[in-house]
Amino acid sequence: MNPYKVTLDSLASLCKRRGFIFQSSEIYGGINGFWDYGPLGCELKRNIRNAWWKDVVQCRDDVVGLDSSIIMHPKIWEASGHIGGFADPMVDCKVCKKRFRADQLCEEQGAKLITEGSTFRLPEGMKCSACGSKDLTTPKAFNLMFKTFVGPVEDESAVAYLRPETAQGIFAQFTNVLSTSRQKVPFGIAQIGKAFRNEINPRNYTFRSREFEQMELEFFIKPGTDAEWHEYWVNERLRWYGSIGLPADSLTRYVYPKEELAHYASACVDVMFAFPFGVQELEGIAARGNFDLSRHQEFSGKPQDYFNQETNEKFIPHVVEPSAGVDRIALALLCNAYREEWLPKDNEAAEIILAEPGKQAPAGYEARTVMGFAPRIAPVKVAVFPLLKNKPELVEKARSLFTDYRRYWPCFYDVTGAIGRRYRRQDEIGTPFGVTVDFQTLQDDTVTLRDRDTMKQERLKIVDLGAFLHKTLD
Amino acid sequence: MNPYKVTLDSLASLCKRRGFIFQSSEIYGGINGFWDYGPLGCELKRNIRNAWWKDVVQCRDDVVGLDSSIIMHPKIWEASGHIGGFADPMVDCKVCKKRFRADQLCEEQGAKLITEGSTFRLPEGMKCSACGSKDLTTPKAFNLMFKTFVGPVEDESAVAYLRPETAQGIFAQFTNVLSTSRQKVPFGIAQIGKAFRNEINPRNYTFRSREFEQMELEFFIKPGTDAEWHEYWVNERLRWYGSIGLPADSLTRYVYPKEELAHYASACVDVMFAFPFGVQELEGIAARGNFDLSRHQEFSGKPQDYFNQETNEKFIPHVVEPSAGVDRIALALLCNAYREEWLPKDNEAAEIILAEPGKQAPAGYEARTVMGFAPRIAPVKVAVFPLLKNKPELVEKARSLFTDYRRYWPCFYDVTGAIGRRYRRQDEIGTPFGVTVDFQTLQDDTVTLRDRDTMKQERLKIVDLGAFLHKTLD
Repeated sequence: MNPYKVTLDSLASLCKRRGFIFQSSEIYGGINGFWDYGPLGCELKRNIRNAWWKDVVQCRDDVVGLDSSIIMHPKIWEASGHIGGFADPMVDCKVCKKRFRADQLCEEQGAKLITEGSTFRLPEGMKCSACGSKDLTTPKAFNLMFKTFVGPVEDESAVAYLRPETAQGIFAQFTNVLSTSRQKVPFGIAQIGKAFRNEINPRNYTFRSREFEQMELEFFIKPGTDAEWHEYWVNERLRWYGSIGLPADSLTRYVYPKEELAHYASACVDVMFAFPFGVQELEGIAARGNFDLSRHQEFSGKPQDYFNQETNEKFIPHVVEPSAGVDRIALALLCNAYREEWLPKDNEAAEIILAEPGKQAPAGYEARTVMGFAPRIAPVKVAVFPLLKNKPELVEKARSLFTDYRRYWPCFYDVTGAIGRRYRRQDEIGTPFGVTVDFQTLQDDTVTLRDRDTMKQERLKIVDLGAFLHKTLD
Repeated sequence: MNPYKVTLDSLASLCKRRGFIFQSSEIYGGINGFWDYGPLGCELKRNIRNAWWKDVVQCRDDVVGLDSSIIMHPKIWEASGHIGGFADPMVDCKVCKKRFRADQLCEEQGAKLITEGSTFRLPEGMKCSACGSKDLTTPKAFNLMFKTFVGPVEDESAVAYLRPETAQGIFAQFTNVLSTSRQKVPFGIAQIGKAFRNEINPRNYTFRSREFEQMELEFFIKPGTDAEWHEYWVNERLRWYGSIGLPADSLTRYVYPKEELAHYASACVDVMFAFPFGVQELEGIAARGNFDLSRHQEFSGKPQDYFNQETNEKFIPHVVEPSAGVDRIALALLCNAYREEWLPKDNEAAEIILAEPGKQAPAGYEARTVMGFAPRIAPVKVAVFPLLKNKPELVEKARSLFTDYRRYWPCFYDVTGAIGRRYRRQDEIGTPFGVTVDFQTLQDDTVTLRDRDTMKQERLKIVDLGAFLHKTLD
């Protein structure tokens, strides 16, 4: 676990300052629940997506990809249950006309919303959080799907929704993929893409936002093998988080007790990360039985079953669904990476000290901020520096290395300021490797390779450096 | 240019059969204007995006990336002019209540919609295309943006739009990117993402759809350098299309005459491709002056100018905008790749003949369908085959090569059927390289490498094959 206890404020400040994350539409005062990723943030997200795609799709025989549309036929959301059930209970103040989430209103006032079957009731004495009036409406379900109209006429027949999850696009194409991809059960269909939920109360920075990106796998299995495949995918996904640099001790599993499971599900485990605002979900891995395909069979009238030619069995496959959020993973990686350190000045023997949040470096030390990203997900992989900017031989050699490396990885070239300041700028964005071209380079084709974490420098032949980088980064 | 004249029907049939493109929500009868990309289609799109990102962002010093939200503050669309002007003229039939695009209705009836300033009028004698009535409304502007509501209340203050282009997300973050990325004018901000237009009449397969993906670059320049940068980007973009395998003679430039330019634009060139349904736009490269940033400055009240520290000049940058469509490029690549050929049977000396569409192969020949994708954008790069599936030594060796290669590229492993049939299946999806492990492999560590286009086989040492693939594909 990251021993530095970062606050969301320090993190958000670095993210804004260095171009990881901006508020959407900031020059217009922002729009609640929407975020933009700047130059470094979008590279971070690309790395997360690419790592997932490589491990979940490319390197497996039994998973293929899909890229389905965000707006789909509205019947899909009837079949999936999202039109009927995907709702928060809302309450209106009859005096000031403000609207609140009923469960949150009750919680704020130390009470608990009363659930009676599928309806809700406020406990005695609840009042409006805005004006204090007790004249509140009965809680009413508010659907979380964003609604729009497709085609020239805005009437009921033209209503469509922005998908609240990418999963249903996969289920709706199950038979097409099955008949075109030569896959046999067990196999999976994977998808990365945007999804939208009209959250009443977006919060915790980018954690709960209204527009977000999912990476979902529907892994179709033979009925009766649910428990073993569910366990397999829980372990597989936990291992994957290790591969992108989240330490095992920063992750916990939340195993759903039976009474919290959806009626069709046989198991669900959430992968939880210790965020500054609490331990929260990164990914859910659910064994959903054949609920989704059965419902699509019922609502579309199109058979969704699988015929096993070897055994002559015919069945609607069950499914295990690992469903992860790109933005949440990005936020976890940022929280895990951020640390401030105190570095000994002029004392090579002294050790780097982890800073105490909010305090100044002690005498004889200076502070640095480091983003300790794993090389695999660091937005910039290699920074190349000529030792001096006014020596054309150094500049030319450094440019030529830079031009070579950036064909493979996002790299950064920097000639401005003292070399120590240039290193520090890269530390703050988490660049794992710094390569400096100095006068010795011109003699013997060696460069120094600086490690972001230890700050140690090592002299390497350029040819060996290339091999090291390819081995570490490809 | 592809000498085989493919029809949209043959292409769509292959795309469905092999898992490139499916109709969205097909089991529910589809939804007009929306498409899903299957296992091969989504790899094709990934390759297009990655090629663009590598060449436009990663390999350049002067371009950084951005990933902004689809739903933004609605004021952005007032500033950009999309709320006022982004509209098609629509006409309603008062009898049967159907709605039509006024310009298309007129065209179908051999007439032309009359434009009077910003209003429209039907010529005499126009009638409803559905019921034939002449009782039609006056044409009225219909905004092409999809509308939704953000937050718990569906009223005017909650209206937001799905972005009709990714470009405005870039303009809205110009100052944030400028102040965090250490870039100086001239520099660019690039973005890939979904955009939405409520087209009245989606058509030509995936060409004009309601949900699509854009790759846009806003390249900010010093006023007065517009013409030279515009020319630079037109040439750069045309060269890029060559790098993904679109031959120069399949592309044309449409240079906008002065009277077709927007009032603020000084130049616009469309890159056009010869589709089966006509020569149509892949990308537009426009010199837009400082229109967008000026409007955002006006509407947000936030200064959008750039201060040049070296010359002490202060100005709102002008912009050159190369704006490309991922789906259109994918369709162009599919059209360009598709061909049917007649292959001589049992006659090594005879040559491959390009098939005549709709005809049978002549005697002594058999037909094959080939997708001639450039290696860079082929969905599957390498197929690995053991010669026989019941020889464990062959299978083991082939699996080990396959496992090695797929760490780098999407690969396919196939043991089923005669080797000729396996080659043919790969031809049809455009896999450029086929690697076969045979008995000689076990003796001397060589394999055969089959070229998709020439169908020639070459025997190579495995170590040389690896080097060849890395050189060709990385």
